[in-house]
Amino acid sequence: MIDYSQFEQWVRDNVKVWQPCNIYPSASIGRNVSIGTFTEIGNNVVIGNNVRIGAMCFIPEGVVIEDDAWIGPRCTFTNDRFPPSPMEGWEPTIVKRGACLGAAVTVVCGVTIGEGALVGAGSVITKDVPAGQVWAGVPAIPIKEGKDEYSKTS
Amino acid sequence: MIDYSQFEQWVRDNVKVWQPCNIYPSASIGRNVSIGTFTEIGNNVVIGNNVRIGAMCFIPEGVVIEDDAWIGPRCTFTNDRFPPSPMEGWEPTIVKRGACLGAAVTVVCGVTIGEGALVGAGSVITKDVPAGQVWAGVPAIPIKEGKDEYSKTS
Amino acid sequence: MIDYSQFEQWVRDNVKVWQPCNIYPSASIGRNVSIGTFTEIGNNVVIGNNVRIGAMCFIPEGVVIEDDAWIGPRCTFTNDRFPPSPMEGWEPTIVKRGACLGAAVTVVCGVTIGEGALVGAGSVITKDVPAGQVWAGVPAIPIKEGKDEYSKTS
Repeated sequence: MIDYSQFEQWVRDNVKVWQPCNIYPSASIGRNVSIGTFTEIGNNVVIGNNVRIGAMCFIPEGVVIEDDAWIGPRCTFTNDRFPPSPMEGWEPTIVKRGACLGAAVTVVCGVTIGEGALVGAGSVITKDVPAGQVWAGVPAIPIKEGKDEYSKTS
Repeated sequence: MIDYSQFEQWVRDNVKVWQPCNIYPSASIGRNVSIGTFTEIGNNVVIGNNVRIGAMCFIPEGVVIEDDAWIGPRCTFTNDRFPPSPMEGWEPTIVKRGACLGAAVTVVCGVTIGEGALVGAGSVITKDVPAGQVWAGVPAIPIKEGKDEYSKTS
Repeated sequence: MIDYSQFEQWVRDNVKVWQPCNIYPSASIGRNVSIGTFTEIGNNVVIGNNVRIGAMCFIPEGVVIEDDAWIGPRCTFTNDRFPPSPMEGWEPTIVKRGACLGAAVTVVCGVTIGEGALVGAGSVITKDVPAGQVWAGVPAIPIKEGKDEYSKTS
């Protein structure tokens, strides 16, 4: 599972990986990243700096998570909208800088979750979430705009 | 992961922990408890007696599960309503005596699930569930009251 | 966890089990099966040939998955509709040949998912899904019939 040759770099970059985890060696992990127990990060996944990945997340090939994003425990990403497709049919997913996904969110592939967006716990994301918006539900829809209310309650 | 010094006590208390699991040593586990594979139980979590925790559950700091509760596989608890908050902003969650959560339930923090309440599989709990009621959905709402029908069908 | 005496047969049958997994020795696994990391497959589960089981799936006793089915990551099956029941009250679940479950699907026990049916990511299945239909949501309902549109987009 773990490519132990990564350990030296992870220590240098302040990456914490709680074991057991399954991180493919071709995944790119930024600095100051924390990755929870029982998480799988697939081939060629890109994780930015200062990202927090919760426990039990599934992040397959095709997913990019930018700097400062926060991914709650048990989030599930996908790369195949109509499985099983050949790899050419897979679709990328991007979580932009500072976006925040609550616990147990499922993300159908091919979408972008905008900068600073928030997704409520247990939601299923099936389309793009614009920057700064708050979405929740199955499928998720906007529940309020902006972060003012968020700022007041957090 | 496992604090192996707990093993002696767990054997004495008839606690079964299916491996691999990630149980923080500061968690308090009652007697006659069963904990499924790939489950994480965080710092200072309190689990009562005769509790059954399914496989792949995520139970972070701030959660209390009282005696005789039944937690299905893949239930996800949280402690931070608007992540990422500093720890002072975390909210506690209580599962009262004999409550029963179906598989894959997500619990947004700050709620109490009442004594003997039932939560349907795949639900997302966002507010208090009164004792004895049956709730389901995303977000969960009451689907029938009392346990009469439940008693007839189980 | 793993019954290492199964390894010889698995190699012979081209079964790939990504570790760590928890597969009970009494489970029956077909040929050309792939089973993802952190998955649990319980007692007496029957998995057909050419089945793909994603990572982090929970498949307990009472589940039958026929040939050519595709089970996405983090799917949760159950066997007890009103837990905790004695084992006589458990209900079987069947996933028929070629059915496809998206990521993070939860299946309430006692149902049949028909041949070639498709279930959208994050859905909760509470009743039978007829062959060839596409269902999604919590609880899941039909979202389109037939596979024509599916065939065009995949």
